Amino acid sequence: MLIKEVLEEQATKAKEAALKMAGLTTEVKNAALFAMADALEKHQDEILKVNAEEVEYFKANSTRQHMLDRLILNPQRITDMANGLRQTALLPDPIGHEDFNVTRPNGLKIRRVRVPFGVVGIIYEARPNVTVDAAALCLKSGNACILRGGSEAIRTNTKLTEILNDAAVASGIPEHAIEFIKITDRDAIVAMCRLRRLIDVIIPRGGAGLIARVVEHSIVPVIETGTGVCHVYVDKAANLEMAAKVALSAKISRPSVCNSMETLVIHKYIAENFLPIIAKSMIEHGVELRGDDECLKICPDMKAATADDWKTEYNDLICNVKIVDSLEEAIEHINKYNTQHSDSILTEDAAAAEKFQTLVDSACVYVNASTRFTDGFEFGFGAEIGISTQKLHARGPMGLEALTTMKYLIDGNGQTR
Amino acid sequence: MLIKEVLEEQATKAKEAALKMAGLTTEVKNAALFAMADALEKHQDEILKVNAEEVEYFKANSTRQHMLDRLILNPQRITDMANGLRQTALLPDPIGHEDFNVTRPNGLKIRRVRVPFGVVGIIYEARPNVTVDAAALCLKSGNACILRGGSEAIRTNTKLTEILNDAAVASGIPEHAIEFIKITDRDAIVAMCRLRRLIDVIIPRGGAGLIARVVEHSIVPVIETGTGVCHVYVDKAANLEMAAKVALSAKISRPSVCNSMETLVIHKYIAENFLPIIAKSMIEHGVELRGDDECLKICPDMKAATADDWKTEYNDLICNVKIVDSLEEAIEHINKYNTQHSDSILTEDAAAAEKFQTLVDSACVYVNASTRFTDGFEFGFGAEIGISTQKLHARGPMGLEALTTMKYLIDGNGQTR
Repeated sequence: MLIKEVLEEQATKAKEAALKMAGLTTEVKNAALFAMADALEKHQDEILKVNAEEVEYFKANSTRQHMLDRLILNPQRITDMANGLRQTALLPDPIGHEDFNVTRPNGLKIRRVRVPFGVVGIIYEARPNVTVDAAALCLKSGNACILRGGSEAIRTNTKLTEILNDAAVASGIPEHAIEFIKITDRDAIVAMCRLRRLIDVIIPRGGAGLIARVVEHSIVPVIETGTGVCHVYVDKAANLEMAAKVALSAKISRPSVCNSMETLVIHKYIAENFLPIIAKSMIEHGVELRGDDECLKICPDMKAATADDWKTEYNDLICNVKIVDSLEEAIEHINKYNTQHSDSILTEDAAAAEKFQTLVDSACVYVNASTRFTDGFEFGFGAEIGISTQKLHARGPMGLEALTTMKYLIDGNGQTR
Repeated sequence: MLIKEVLEEQATKAKEAALKMAGLTTEVKNAALFAMADALEKHQDEILKVNAEEVEYFKANSTRQHMLDRLILNPQRITDMANGLRQTALLPDPIGHEDFNVTRPNGLKIRRVRVPFGVVGIIYEARPNVTVDAAALCLKSGNACILRGGSEAIRTNTKLTEILNDAAVASGIPEHAIEFIKITDRDAIVAMCRLRRLIDVIIPRGGAGLIARVVEHSIVPVIETGTGVCHVYVDKAANLEMAAKVALSAKISRPSVCNSMETLVIHKYIAENFLPIIAKSMIEHGVELRGDDECLKICPDMKAATADDWKTEYNDLICNVKIVDSLEEAIEHINKYNTQHSDSILTEDAAAAEKFQTLVDSACVYVNASTRFTDGFEFGFGAEIGISTQKLHARGPMGLEALTTMKYLIDGNGQTR
């Protein structure tokens, strides 16, 4: 069989499951999630055995040893995955919610209700916990899913999905509600992106390269996630003590994640005062600074930022610094280089804050807070599928509702037009 | 200049306009729409002159004479376009609406508000009225637009957009809010679909070929519109008099549009009684019927439907007929062949109606009414950008809200994580 035939067969089965899942009750879905959690714990030894073999193989063969930690499972991590399934069961069911209801002059009653997408395709990198997480969120939202994880964890992920599927089916979920793609060739990603009408949406979760490949090849609608070139702008009217604290934290608290700051923008009126202070504390925390010409005049030891630096997501202890003449120039710089993820202004000037929030074109625009809060749990959604950096369908942290669409139900008594 | 350079320049200008437009008030937008309406009427003679020349050229040179009527303007059609602009001004402004507002335990206030997309790309066929309509709806929703109309109306459309732009700019709308692409090569469509980060969404309005080309090439998110293989299912518990009236009307009232019926599905219990009646009235109205084997047993004169017929949008006086053994088989057939546009059940059985509405995977699922009501005006939206047949972002008739996205505004007092 060709890769595309294997995938088409899997997606066809998922689609058949999805068409049945539109009618599942909340009770059945929740019972399945609890049963899946119990099954993970019950089969812990089996899972750990497969995982240990895969970890050994990875240690001996992979050139990507920095990914090792993501691959390793242990009893605590299995308990965490099981508890994640239970927490998903406790979230409100997004399906069936009615947000529009009118009776037209001709007597037609038109309602709009939340319904599942159908089949959700998720493409991600190695982590086994994403397998469990994605399966749980798709099931809770009434969707079948087709999952494509990285090759390093392929055996662990296969085992996990077998256990989850068995428990789900025993609880009344249709077979093939969780399809896992075992083909590890990169071509499988492209083949998956061609399965129009079988897969309703594809969500890539991973680095910029993976996302670009999916966007390039997909004829299935895509929700892009993740890449974050986030800015913190310290306005002339900022509380500088607060600004120093927020900017430092936005950079150093977890530099590897998408919502951490990559560029600090400073108003020229306060730059001479503020820059040496923030630069000193950044450097003390191991941050390499890269500045524009104006920064170098104030801090001559700073490295010069290149044209590419302004658009780079470092995911590391590196920070660009830019001095601007005005709020407007700050907004212009940010709209030119951001990834429409998260940007923040530090200011005590309400008019400046409002202008910044109106004109900066990002999913999340902060006033006097760190960009690091862009996260489904921090927003109170109780779950996160990812952070959308596109404007279509979902923007910013995606909770369960992002995995749903809507449907118009129209009731008449013989109306014609 | 290469086509892609010309388009990139236009889209860059539209993007700059869009970033300014996010801050426009409702009053400025509405005043501009009224001024644009007045300008069309004021420049009526100029428009008609250009259009008359273009119509003459089309008559003499085009092989697509069936499109002639769509191309022709006259004083009444210009008045209609002007009134369309005025009606758009009277619609509620979708921008700024807040649908989520929480204060988190850490004191962060998180709001979610409706904002414009930015730059909306619309690709359509000849009709000049679409130019005016699309420009109006994009402006009202705070978006810049980049329009690509068909080659037949290129001069009329160019003239219209010049007049609209002049009036808009005089009313305080940024320059380049309405960009019109004058390059008529098909390559311009592909080039437009590559302008990621400059165009925020592309909406193709036209035939299946145009939509497929856009979906294939676009790395900009797309909202698919239009194609409709709609079904009417006459259940065993249908009121047959009502069913005959609705089915006939769904086929013949306007066969060229996407919401008209292409396939009639009939439960076997009533087929012997119902099929001869509906077949007779369809044939009297000039409809060619194509049936499955069971139909041919009842009406031997009927043409046999081929495998391809079930998935064909005829847009013509042709209708497939299928007899099914059960409600479940009807749902299965519909989910296999529909374009997820509009499908209807005729039944007096509430449980059958609910099952049909839950399990049929379409934007609009009707009970006891014609599929022909799937339309933004019929739904009371006051406008229609098109009918989305995808599940991402918008589904079914799209009003102004479909041209917007949302943004999180987060206010803090120095929070870090």
